[in-house]
Amino acid sequence: MSRATKSRGPGRRPGAPDTRGEIIEVARAEFAARGFEGTSIRGVARAAGVDPALIHHYFGSKDDLFLAVMDVPFDPRDFVKLMVDSPYDEVGTIVVRTFLGLWERSEIQQRFRGLLGSALTNEAAAELMRTALTRLLFDAVADRIHEEDGRLRANLAGSQLIGLAMARYVIRLEPLASTPTDEVIAWIAPTLQRYLHGPTPG
Amino acid sequence: MSRATKSRGPGRRPGAPDTRGEIIEVARAEFAARGFEGTSIRGVARAAGVDPALIHHYFGSKDDLFLAVMDVPFDPRDFVKLMVDSPYDEVGTIVVRTFLGLWERSEIQQRFRGLLGSALTNEAAAELMRTALTRLLFDAVADRIHEEDGRLRANLAGSQLIGLAMARYVIRLEPLASTPTDEVIAWIAPTLQRYLHGPTPG
Repeated sequence: MSRATKSRGPGRRPGAPDTRGEIIEVARAEFAARGFEGTSIRGVARAAGVDPALIHHYFGSKDDLFLAVMDVPFDPRDFVKLMVDSPYDEVGTIVVRTFLGLWERSEIQQRFRGLLGSALTNEAAAELMRTALTRLLFDAVADRIHEEDGRLRANLAGSQLIGLAMARYVIRLEPLASTPTDEVIAWIAPTLQRYLHGPTPG
Repeated sequence: MSRATKSRGPGRRPGAPDTRGEIIEVARAEFAARGFEGTSIRGVARAAGVDPALIHHYFGSKDDLFLAVMDVPFDPRDFVKLMVDSPYDEVGTIVVRTFLGLWERSEIQQRFRGLLGSALTNEAAAELMRTALTRLLFDAVADRIHEEDGRLRANLAGSQLIGLAMARYVIRLEPLASTPTDEVIAWIAPTLQRYLHGPTPG
């Protein structure tokens, strides 16, 4: 899973002003101040003193710009595609296996740690993470999960995955941290499967 | 759940040096440098230049001193007692209900956020949290949970609870954050029940 936006930027040329980096800084301030819905490519362009077409050229859509600002090291839309393409009764296994694979990559793990740490100490960062997860992940799969409470079910699955990462990779509880991946998947997959496609409790 | 150690300290008297606070600072450095097992009341007393009996007087046992250093706003041993006293088939419900009750209290939530944030950015803090959870919570309930893999099962239950707190109270995913407590419990309790007392998968 490579970041879709990465190849679109020309990178910094020696001697050239880092226009792409400046746009990201301006966009970060806009998203933090106005939230996702309140921010527009046009508004970012105005604040950065560039043409909106340049932002589209560098980043693509507003979603792409947002991912670049968040510096998310994989494209959550790849994750959505994976879920949508998975056989109904294997989705729990596939999701937890893919998630663990991301956390096993040190550069991705570093970035995830940074994002979670920011969310714990900074309300604006928590709001951006909430928006990113809701818009790019949970909303995109909700209908596929369940016609009534798909978003709640997606949140619950997300809660188990976030906690698994905290317990296994951050706090490193033993024996969970050194349990083989396949064994962890065997424990966690049924939980995800129930949250996503099981009966509503009560 | 009140902190058992709190009533043992005499508190700071006006004009008196804050011996209790100084011992906590020294003990924090000792635990961070040597870990839980490598730290002794005798060693802390030596480093602080006080008699070991004074530390016992202020704090009680090494476990109590450790909890005071971690500034944990409730006694995890109360949680253990609750789990041990719960009817076998209600333990999932009782554990998640108690856990959510702690997170609903703002002073406890603030401290939990601080502990999780430290664990994300500081390896020594992560090690202390790992030690605290393992020693005072997971080890204490492991035998009661399962004779073979009680500690792994306790870790898994902990992972769901940590992730639930992150999703509901820190990132505040919607609709999970505004879902009534009883509904959240109905979703999460079967997961804990399976981790703690369900069949081993595979």
